[in-house]
Amino acid sequence: MLATTLQGVRDIRFTTVPDPEISRPTDAIVKVAASCICGSDLWNYRGENSIRPGMTIGHECLGIVEEVGGEVSSFRPGDFVIVPFCHSDNTCPACRAGVTSACVDGGFTVSGQGEYARVNHADGSLVAIPADPAPELLASLLALTDVMATGWHAAVSAGVRPGGTAVVVGDGAVGLCGVLAAATLGAARVVAMSRHAPRQALARRFGATDIVASRGEQGEAEVLELTDGVGADAVLECVGTDETMRTAFAVARAGATVGFVGVPHGVNLPVRRMFDRNIGLAGGVAPVRAYLPELLPLVLGGAIDPGQVFDATLPLAESAEGYRLMDEREAIKVFLQP
Amino acid sequence: MLATTLQGVRDIRFTTVPDPEISRPTDAIVKVAASCICGSDLWNYRGENSIRPGMTIGHECLGIVEEVGGEVSSFRPGDFVIVPFCHSDNTCPACRAGVTSACVDGGFTVSGQGEYARVNHADGSLVAIPADPAPELLASLLALTDVMATGWHAAVSAGVRPGGTAVVVGDGAVGLCGVLAAATLGAARVVAMSRHAPRQALARRFGATDIVASRGEQGEAEVLELTDGVGADAVLECVGTDETMRTAFAVARAGATVGFVGVPHGVNLPVRRMFDRNIGLAGGVAPVRAYLPELLPLVLGGAIDPGQVFDATLPLAESAEGYRLMDEREAIKVFLQP
Repeated sequence: MLATTLQGVRDIRFTTVPDPEISRPTDAIVKVAASCICGSDLWNYRGENSIRPGMTIGHECLGIVEEVGGEVSSFRPGDFVIVPFCHSDNTCPACRAGVTSACVDGGFTVSGQGEYARVNHADGSLVAIPADPAPELLASLLALTDVMATGWHAAVSAGVRPGGTAVVVGDGAVGLCGVLAAATLGAARVVAMSRHAPRQALARRFGATDIVASRGEQGEAEVLELTDGVGADAVLECVGTDETMRTAFAVARAGATVGFVGVPHGVNLPVRRMFDRNIGLAGGVAPVRAYLPELLPLVLGGAIDPGQVFDATLPLAESAEGYRLMDEREAIKVFLQP
Repeated sequence: MLATTLQGVRDIRFTTVPDPEISRPTDAIVKVAASCICGSDLWNYRGENSIRPGMTIGHECLGIVEEVGGEVSSFRPGDFVIVPFCHSDNTCPACRAGVTSACVDGGFTVSGQGEYARVNHADGSLVAIPADPAPELLASLLALTDVMATGWHAAVSAGVRPGGTAVVVGDGAVGLCGVLAAATLGAARVVAMSRHAPRQALARRFGATDIVASRGEQGEAEVLELTDGVGADAVLECVGTDETMRTAFAVARAGATVGFVGVPHGVNLPVRRMFDRNIGLAGGVAPVRAYLPELLPLVLGGAIDPGQVFDATLPLAESAEGYRLMDEREAIKVFLQP
């Protein structure tokens, strides 16, 4: 098949790779109908993670079941499905505890920016959606495979409650979905930290009541001023650097929780501040599958429209250009059409 | 007055110091009727914190109100009171959020092992108790000023729930109170990590169902075996070293929370493990005042008896010997009688 591959730092090629195959009877192969590029793909693209030249890349896709293993009972070829980026048997103790992203026998989508993707534990991972959704719905459904579920996880982990104050650190697609999540969960005040006008505008559309464009200590001071010096009831950390994590803890009120979903890179947690101020940390890899029963109806019913995070669309074969757009922050998030 | 002072590393003297005075109209002076030594006092005693030679020491006491400032309305001289080790106005946003230990105008008891102690914000900090409690009740009431409330905070922060599994890391007095808290909050299985027979015995009396005597990787393996390889639903970290924190995260199941109350010293939090396994961290300085309305009836009604952590009693004037006993682990916790 043809798939997006990473050959080296900033070297994306759409090229021929072996077709994914059913390797265990619980697997399924999905023909990709819509795909996209994730902010976390940029860690690999920029060489900030160790990479294997020629590796396929892409973990966000939805599509049509092409083939199922002998033990798959809930899906059959032709079904339209959402593919959570992390797969799960949905029966192990971690899954039963709601943490499908830590399934004892889990896995990840690894060729989501290709023609086909393999899904481990298809019965436990996939969620059926109506066939041939309208294009604007397709984008929002695709967002449920990772970015919207991840923003939701940040908000839930941070303990966003109706009437409270939430601060979102990070204006990438995940951060913007975090704004949408915090507003949907009822936060009365949602502060988006963003210094890019198009992202500020989308944050407003998603429910942000305040924008703080400054970063670092100045940004922290501005957020504290907005919250009467107290800090926020809930903080969503949607980047994963040491600086953004420091900001997250700086703007949290005593007793608050930082919900973190940005893959941590070089983060040293301020344990003494956490202790002295009773500021907790929760979150991690989003358990997408666990949230879908709640999120899918919100999308299908039109209550949320996370597909707005896509501000560029390219043919799958031009995925390299998509990476360039996101790397240079010319696009928030790139939708890829097979 | 006479008070316990720290003159240098492992140099405790009971000596004359200036009487504490009403410095603000919201202050009160309490005549100490019972006091004790805290595990965290040993950080100072051993010189692991920076110390000021001649400083008074001791933050756990209860006693009789001796004098109140002009704005104190809820207490008067002669009242028998519990003195939470951290003081709070009980009206600021942090206090209203339940985190009285992060009060914007808080303070700490600093001469609890002396004849008198000053309390900031007496109205917001103190809690009245019956006059002249019986000796065995006195010990349990004294435990509410810090150690029992701190163990409770570990259990609450860790999210102990009825029917779940809890692991307590640390067999100091706080850890043992953590066992009592986890059992009281309904954990079906409470694993105490302890290698000292007298502490194991007290842990059993407090409700531990299992004891793991090994430490480090061996101890972690044994806890995981007890929990079918899954890890515990809630972990109470009651020491504060890097090793014990690592153990806490190693024995937590995916999606669990580590409740930490041991003052962190040299701790590097395993942020990547926390992220990959969705293991949260919550806790910190215990908001004693906030828990007293819940804990005081449990003690007065006989439901809990945390005073059992005291296994040695000395006259206040012999506090130096008390420090030696605790430093050398000859005593779990030392009760001091004025």
